[in-house]
Amino acid sequence: MSTNITWHSSALGREEREKLLSSKGVVIWLTGLSGSGKSTIGRALEANLIREGRFAYGLDGDNIRFGLCKDLGFSPEDRKENIRRIGAVAQLFCDAGAITICSFVSPYKNDRDAVRTLVANRFVEVHVDCSVEECARRDPKGLYKKARAGEIPNFTGISAPYEAPIDPEIHIDTATSSIEHSVNTIVAYLMHQDLLHVVDRPNR
Amino acid sequence: MSTNITWHSSALGREEREKLLSSKGVVIWLTGLSGSGKSTIGRALEANLIREGRFAYGLDGDNIRFGLCKDLGFSPEDRKENIRRIGAVAQLFCDAGAITICSFVSPYKNDRDAVRTLVANRFVEVHVDCSVEECARRDPKGLYKKARAGEIPNFTGISAPYEAPIDPEIHIDTATSSIEHSVNTIVAYLMHQDLLHVVDRPNR
Repeated sequence: MSTNITWHSSALGREEREKLLSSKGVVIWLTGLSGSGKSTIGRALEANLIREGRFAYGLDGDNIRFGLCKDLGFSPEDRKENIRRIGAVAQLFCDAGAITICSFVSPYKNDRDAVRTLVANRFVEVHVDCSVEECARRDPKGLYKKARAGEIPNFTGISAPYEAPIDPEIHIDTATSSIEHSVNTIVAYLMHQDLLHVVDRPNR
Repeated sequence: MSTNITWHSSALGREEREKLLSSKGVVIWLTGLSGSGKSTIGRALEANLIREGRFAYGLDGDNIRFGLCKDLGFSPEDRKENIRRIGAVAQLFCDAGAITICSFVSPYKNDRDAVRTLVANRFVEVHVDCSVEECARRDPKGLYKKARAGEIPNFTGISAPYEAPIDPEIHIDTATSSIEHSVNTIVAYLMHQDLLHVVDRPNR
């Protein structure tokens, strides 16, 4: 690339951007109880898409709760603001042309629907469905034990509600679906919706 | 891409991600007065990088102040929180491997330095330098006129301070540098720092 790059003064529309980058922006929103497997599926999906050369990026508690939303707790108001900010960031990544994989409990239907409205026809809601009993049995972080002992207030499934998606684009039953199968289910959906279509990359 | 994608269970490190995506994450931070030309240079840089097939994305008032930070005003506290959130988002884009172009007045040195610390050696501060008099003469949005009439409180350069960068990576004097020259200056710096190096993209 020359330092005297070819000069263009115009801005780029979404279509031109996606064609030049050989990618389409989409928001894949994984919702489910703590311990249901959202982040595990999300990270596996991200890694596998990147290994195919796709521009994918995952947002989850690990990179959001300690950064952008470190000032927020788990009250209903804070959860709402947490999801609002994540939705705004997901919209930016989607606009940038990234396959944006969001793994959050996101227990309130209204909050998820607000993100859906933001990104319009680029929203894929995935219900990572797992019973409270099974999540509590797995309890990978020991949170259910603490929640049942009353040590964690507002814990979804124990002391705070989870509003399951009514008509999600994808439903995954983690009792019967392996991580690999779950990832393949999502990829197949994206292909079917023409959200993974990649045009020939121009020579560089 | 087959729906039965090759299965990898491991997560990706930054190096592997950047190699697979043929891109390096970096945060280019354009700071300067309102009307100095930050957003114009930022948008031109973004469009030209994308036209070269690079994954670039621009953050500025247009896509931040009406979304992620729509709850914030222009008091010193709100400006600090505004830049904190933008910094957190820029860190995510940088981590994703994007050339992240941030165009914000960002008048406080401490706030900019906090972002620099977040992204460590991937921060390029660009001072888009233009005198208050010249910015007020251009006044593309009519804001200086309003600010001088006392209709906009806390307006940087008029009724709020601007702390110029002391030792920015790049200094652009918009009185003498065209947009094209400004963009080329930034691109040349990125190349010199090996931040635009692209490895061969594996066949897909």
